[in-house]
Amino acid sequence: MASEKQSKAIPLSHHLSEVAKARKPSPLKGLSKYFKQEGVLSLAGGLPSPAYFPLSGLSVDALVSDSFALAPTERSSSFSWLWKLLGSSSFKKERTTAISIPKYSATPDDINLAAALQYGAAVAQPQLQNFLRDFVMQVYQPAFEDFTVLIDTGNTDGWCRAFGTLCNPGQGVLMEEWTYPSALASMMPAGVDPVSVPMDGEGMKSDALEKLLSEWDEEARQMSRPHVMYIVPVGQNPCGTTMGATRKKQIYEICVKYDIIIVEDDPYYFMQLGTYEMKSQRSSVASPVSHRSGDEARFIASLEPSFLKYDYQGRVIRLDTFSKTIAPGARLGFFTCNPVFAERFERQGETSTQSPCGFGQSIVTKILTTWKYEGYIRWLQGLRTEYQQRRDFFVDCLADEFHLQATPAVAGIWEGCTMYRAFSKPSVLNTNEKLLSQSRALFSFIPPNSGMFVWLKLNLEDHPSFTPDDEGTLETKLWARLAENGVIFAPGWFFTTDDLASSEPSAGHFRISYSNAEYGDLKKAVNIFGRVIREFFDEQV
Amino acid sequence: MASEKQSKAIPLSHHLSEVAKARKPSPLKGLSKYFKQEGVLSLAGGLPSPAYFPLSGLSVDALVSDSFALAPTERSSSFSWLWKLLGSSSFKKERTTAISIPKYSATPDDINLAAALQYGAAVAQPQLQNFLRDFVMQVYQPAFEDFTVLIDTGNTDGWCRAFGTLCNPGQGVLMEEWTYPSALASMMPAGVDPVSVPMDGEGMKSDALEKLLSEWDEEARQMSRPHVMYIVPVGQNPCGTTMGATRKKQIYEICVKYDIIIVEDDPYYFMQLGTYEMKSQRSSVASPVSHRSGDEARFIASLEPSFLKYDYQGRVIRLDTFSKTIAPGARLGFFTCNPVFAERFERQGETSTQSPCGFGQSIVTKILTTWKYEGYIRWLQGLRTEYQQRRDFFVDCLADEFHLQATPAVAGIWEGCTMYRAFSKPSVLNTNEKLLSQSRALFSFIPPNSGMFVWLKLNLEDHPSFTPDDEGTLETKLWARLAENGVIFAPGWFFTTDDLASSEPSAGHFRISYSNAEYGDLKKAVNIFGRVIREFFDEQV
Repeated sequence: MASEKQSKAIPLSHHLSEVAKARKPSPLKGLSKYFKQEGVLSLAGGLPSPAYFPLSGLSVDALVSDSFALAPTERSSSFSWLWKLLGSSSFKKERTTAISIPKYSATPDDINLAAALQYGAAVAQPQLQNFLRDFVMQVYQPAFEDFTVLIDTGNTDGWCRAFGTLCNPGQGVLMEEWTYPSALASMMPAGVDPVSVPMDGEGMKSDALEKLLSEWDEEARQMSRPHVMYIVPVGQNPCGTTMGATRKKQIYEICVKYDIIIVEDDPYYFMQLGTYEMKSQRSSVASPVSHRSGDEARFIASLEPSFLKYDYQGRVIRLDTFSKTIAPGARLGFFTCNPVFAERFERQGETSTQSPCGFGQSIVTKILTTWKYEGYIRWLQGLRTEYQQRRDFFVDCLADEFHLQATPAVAGIWEGCTMYRAFSKPSVLNTNEKLLSQSRALFSFIPPNSGMFVWLKLNLEDHPSFTPDDEGTLETKLWARLAENGVIFAPGWFFTTDDLASSEPSAGHFRISYSNAEYGDLKKAVNIFGRVIREFFDEQV
Repeated sequence: MASEKQSKAIPLSHHLSEVAKARKPSPLKGLSKYFKQEGVLSLAGGLPSPAYFPLSGLSVDALVSDSFALAPTERSSSFSWLWKLLGSSSFKKERTTAISIPKYSATPDDINLAAALQYGAAVAQPQLQNFLRDFVMQVYQPAFEDFTVLIDTGNTDGWCRAFGTLCNPGQGVLMEEWTYPSALASMMPAGVDPVSVPMDGEGMKSDALEKLLSEWDEEARQMSRPHVMYIVPVGQNPCGTTMGATRKKQIYEICVKYDIIIVEDDPYYFMQLGTYEMKSQRSSVASPVSHRSGDEARFIASLEPSFLKYDYQGRVIRLDTFSKTIAPGARLGFFTCNPVFAERFERQGETSTQSPCGFGQSIVTKILTTWKYEGYIRWLQGLRTEYQQRRDFFVDCLADEFHLQATPAVAGIWEGCTMYRAFSKPSVLNTNEKLLSQSRALFSFIPPNSGMFVWLKLNLEDHPSFTPDDEGTLETKLWARLAENGVIFAPGWFFTTDDLASSEPSAGHFRISYSNAEYGDLKKAVNIFGRVIREFFDEQV
């Protein structure tokens, strides 16, 4: 079944939910010829006059697109957190470009507040629409040509519209065994339940998926075979795994075989960080990298492809967001998908959020169109490097605090990856060296190769108070102990789709984010974590 | 059943839909004590560093709060549209105040982009929350003290969350016989149907409501008695009616009796425009009005109260929006309601839109807090006067174009109001005077005393091609004829809740908005309408 480039999306409207089918087409669609007449006087809509919008203009000091370096530029040292704290980009003088958005503009092609702040269709402003379409073509290269790009207020809104359009109550959605809690919290009240698929070091396992679907027993499951998949293939939340091209092709073909719609939630796509190397193995002084022509294309080519690239049928609904690349508060994201689905998402937008905020849309659009495509890619490259440094720094902190032992993982969610087991380190302050002498690992993890999170597996079965099925209680106890000491991680139970089917039943988990805290705070948090977990493993609780 | 001031909301959780009941409480609620610790290091959330938000500051030229006059200031004349066109405020030099929002601020009390553009709870920024709570207290004076104010992305989002939280599929919602089409388009695909309540010149009729509920026949209707009402009490959309205090109290008590939740959708609340007087009866030169201390309180006292004022039980969910008072593109509104409902709306927000856009929120908040409460009320007074002038000008245009005859309406949706019947006027250009000689009214209307719309009832039964049940076709034919001539009104069929039960079955309708077009265009549109409707009534079609 060869993937044919530039095919047309196939009709997939049998996937629509009852609610989606009941939505009427826009009543204005048939009348659009009248609205488009030159000089038409429309007294139809309840539009306030823009004269009454209480502002005459807006301006923004936008960062330049090459604000962040392309490669780590400072010496790697155990004091780099201090250097970074002092030199942190938030305190450096930022280079900016003044951008202004007037209330009225000479031509409608220029972004203006009179238009941006008026009621409008639940689609992007034309300038943003053009930018996004070009961006999708160049970066994701969808395999079907009639794809639609439609904005939303971010991927939470996107997923909410997607399952509402695809799922009836009582249906299930295929998900990675650990997943984004908000995706669950959106759909479960609507009677749509997760169907857990086992993972390995690349995320969802294709063989496990095939097995699950081929052996699906409607009666035993009390559920028809799922026709929708929700997947976070890059910077998997919470596990931090990245799915490569081969696995994506395998999963796509299984979804063709079983007629499944893939919802690809991909906020961390541009945070593909590469493999972590121990500090001692990284070159101590990175050579400064200057920008060269063709760099954007090389960067894009270096990224694992989106499912869209293999989507010759139009069964992928890709969710993109500006939350991680511009700012979460922009509340701006976009679908790329089959026009059949996009039309239903647009109707749903009209009767819920309407268009995303005109302030946010026009500011983001103006920044993007000022940078242009090449500038935005340069910005994304800079961000990638920043998060890579944060990831490296955080794992270095763990390596400073614990004795790490690298082992190839042969089973479980990290199968195929180099796993690090963390042992207590002998220390002049820690006179109790029982733990190390017994070679008892406190936890294990793999340094993520994308995204924002380290996913820790606590070796609770080695805890003195451990009894089977007690791991949840121990996880919560350690979580609370940490919180009382001023450090908050995300507890593992947030992220589970299926307690019973988990391939890691006897381990507690924490998700730790290295994306936001100052470097000094990351260091401090790891020190506190070290002290608390050592004490915890050394006592009956 | 006396309305007691400052009572507590009563428990009304039996009104929650199955979906709303299935929503879990926020998992973070129980953990909030940890997050609030001084100096806590949270590595739990997937937050990007604000250093990566690509802007260092934002500034806005905000209009001053007294930008618009308190009373009409120019001579009323048939050429006022020309005067207004040339002198329109959108072309006048606007008086502005420079407002800036930095990325980082010295104290968290100052609005800053680092906080506004970060992920946050689905509630307002603290500065906005304080402003709104004070505003609700002073303006709407809710009768129960434990009300909650919660932001949303506008009243479409608000209604979408409200019916989702209150209604199961198969249930009905009490609505005015003519209503806002988007409210229908949101709920009907979810299997929630309108139950039409007759109207008069004040909107929904209380006696008709009582009759409908007391005689409710579950079997004949194939529906349980509705427990939710959707109502637009001010500037009723599309009819332009305003509901007074007495009627509101009557309806509230009926809702207490039958245990009904009232969703008060009130975007036009501050556009209470007073009764239209014919141009000849208005004082020809309005005296300029200067602002005096206490004016805000007098203005607020002059407005018909919200249902909240009588809501001693907490069964009113009020929907407010900044779409008509700031700008639609702000996508910002707020609920005022019982905390039981507000908590569910917040959960629904977390899993759909999240928080409204941080750009929009911080700009609107900064404008409001710069103006302060008194300034915002002054702004609203100015807007009210602007819309009053627009309403007066538009009705004047109709009086210029047609011969208007005032008649008290004794039945139907305008019962109790002065209705105007519009006849063709003899004209030197119109040699066919058959119409006038036959005294055939072309249409009738009441000048609205609030909102943005004139609702026309076409006298289609007097059309030469009229056959019973044909009014829909004739309405569409005239609509298309007008559109072909470059004028677009909203067709009546958009707004119906119940074709069969309508008290005005034989009349076509148009909704005309005077809120946005330039005065010259309003004049021109009425001229074209005059020509087209006269020709239309004079021919077989």
